[in-house]
Formats: sequence, C-alpha cells, structure tokens
Amino acid sequence: MNFGIYIYKNAEVLDFSGPFEVLSTANRLGNKDWNIFLVSENQGVTQARGGYPINSHFSFEDHPEIDVLIVVGGIHTEEVKKSNVTTWVAKVAENSMKVASVCTGAFILAEAGLLDGLTVTTHWEDLSDLMTDYPQLNVVSDQRWVPQGKYITSGGISAGIDMTLHLVSELANLTLAKETAKQMEYNWQKNTQPSV
Amino acid sequence: MNFGIYIYKNAEVLDFSGPFEVLSTANRLGNKDWNIFLVSENQGVTQARGGYPINSHFSFEDHPEIDVLIVVGGIHTEEVKKSNVTTWVAKVAENSMKVASVCTGAFILAEAGLLDGLTVTTHWEDLSDLMTDYPQLNVVSDQRWVPQGKYITSGGISAGIDMTLHLVSELANLTLAKETAKQMEYNWQKNTQPSV
Repeated sequence: MNFGIYIYKNAEVLDFSGPFEVLSTANRLGNKDWNIFLVSENQGVTQARGGYPINSHFSFEDHPEIDVLIVVGGIHTEEVKKSNVTTWVAKVAENSMKVASVCTGAFILAEAGLLDGLTVTTHWEDLSDLMTDYPQLNVVSDQRWVPQGKYITSGGISAGIDMTLHLVSELANLTLAKETAKQMEYNWQKNTQPSV
Repeated sequence: MNFGIYIYKNAEVLDFSGPFEVLSTANRLGNKDWNIFLVSENQGVTQARGGYPINSHFSFEDHPEIDVLIVVGGIHTEEVKKSNVTTWVAKVAENSMKVASVCTGAFILAEAGLLDGLTVTTHWEDLSDLMTDYPQLNVVSDQRWVPQGKYITSGGISAGIDMTLHLVSELANLTLAKETAKQMEYNWQKNTQPSV
C-alpha cells in the first residue's frame, strides 16, 4: 500500500512528520509492506514552517500511485490559489482509497471540491474561516478527527497523529495502532479535542 | 538564543521534528529571537528512520554557537561508536547552557560522559540497556522527563514534545509553553508516562 503525504513551502512540520512517524513505526512493528513517502510540487528542498529543510521522495511528475493521500496544513493560503495543486489533489483523490487532511489541509481538500456536503474539521483557529469560505461543508469543532467514508479530516497539528493512528486501525487493525502509540509513548487521544 | 538539534542517519523522526515544532511555534507566538536549527555530522541529506529525507541547516564544521543542545534518539547504536560524534557533543555541551536528550539520545550523552551520577530516563524499551551499559547513571522509569540542572533527559519519542514544552517554560515562561501546546492542540503530558 502506498501512502503519499503532500508537503509544501511553510507546511506545518508536525502535520507531516507526525503521520510519517506513525505510519513508518506501524509498518516496522506490523511487518507491513507499506511504502510511505513525501510528495512535493517540485523536486529539491522544501522549506517547511520555521525554515525546516525537508526533501520529498517524489514530485508531482514522478510519484507512484497513491492509495492513501494525506494533505497537511500550515500556511495553506498560497496553496489553495494554485490550480495545479488542487487539480493534482483532485486527480490523486479520484484513484485513491482514502484521502485525509491534517489541520488546515482541509482548506486544500475543500478547494479541490472533495469535501462538499461532508462533516469536517480543522485547526481550532481556522474553523470559522472554513465555514465562511466553504459554506457547503458542515464544519464541527468537537471532534479530534472526522471520518466520512473515503474522506477524513482532523483538527490542528498534533491531531494528525491521532487521526493517523485511526487510519492504522482501519487499514491494519486496532492492536497495531495501540502498539504503535505505545512504541511512540504517545497517549492516543480519541475523538475529543484537548481543552483549548 | 541558539537551539541546535543533532540529527543522524536513522534518527527517530518525531524525536527531532517534535522539538523543532515546539520551539519554532513558541518562537513565533512569543516573538522571541530564537534561532532553531538542525545539525548533522556532514552536509547534505540525512536519511532519518523510515527513510525520511531531512536536510540539516549546519554540519559539525560550520554551525554557530549552540546555547541549547538537543540530542535525539533512534538507532543510536552506531552513533555511540563514533568518537567524533561524542567528542563533538561533549565539546558543545561544555559551552552550552542546557543539554537535552530525547529517547535513546540519552545513550549518546552518557557515552560522551555527560550524565555520570545523574538521574536520567530514556525510551521504556531501552531502560535496562541504559542501566547495564552505564551503571554510573541512576536510571528511572516513571518520569516523562528528568531535569538535572543543566542536563535534562526525556522518555521515548513523543516525550520529547513534553520535555521541550518544559524547556520553553524555563527559557521563556509557563504561559508561552501553554500557548504553544494550545496552538499545537497538544495535551501536554507532565512528568508521568502514559500507561504502556
């Protein structure tokens, strides 16, 4: 199974490194044959938020098929304006079995027209903007992650870790998800946001 | 203030990306003038655990002075054998105000001779090895992080996030640490490990 995590300039660091850690740890512990990779628009170094110099494994041009697409948040405002990005996301989503967003990655999925009519969530600071910008979405604030069939959106930053543990429970099993959390010494937070 | 995070081949992804996220978020929210960077032995791409392609900002040869050194875990067994690494860590530690380890980064600090006589912790899976390999350390299992003056060690992987929030509370203030956790939607786990 191929997991593609989309990164871009000023993507939030934990939004992609958290899910990568969860998936690669689950892959190791569960002896899965999962292929987990980062995808960026172009090749070379991407400066994630705070000047974090991350390389991708693949660009839009050369990535393998993606079964599970994860679109992360950060300074998403430039991303939603790029028609090549939203077109790519929509095209990959069409052929994938699961599409997830972390944090404000929900804006990118929404702009790509993938979330119409669905119940979704995002970072607590951006809930009202998501409601205003995409009134066809049902935006909720009390869920850590919101599964909607093929689509799943999560709250801000660290909520991506919790959502990805849920993906592990769905795509493998609950035991492996719990073992992964234990290996990460992570207190898996389910379906409620911390008191913020 | 300069924060240097030491990374290496097969370093655990969340061990360095978690503290980077915490420090860069605190830096932004608190309008600090913190300089947060990754340091590797050599220039170029480092393959962190699971094949995560991270660049460093600096190598051993060209990094600025480091006020706060964070040494991360992962597959540390090769690192402790490299005398140039432990020599570098010991030398940087000598001139820094704070030295922290995440997860099995404690083995690297111990090998550099920095933890003798101190109370320390590491990943739950490696506690007995740390006791056996370095009998001059007082290894404890019931703490999320253990401050010992200039030195501080933390439990496994996600515990580095909690420890770094503690560093923010020490180096700035508790309010900023709490605001950072809120921004990350992270449930700051203090001084107790999750039930693993």
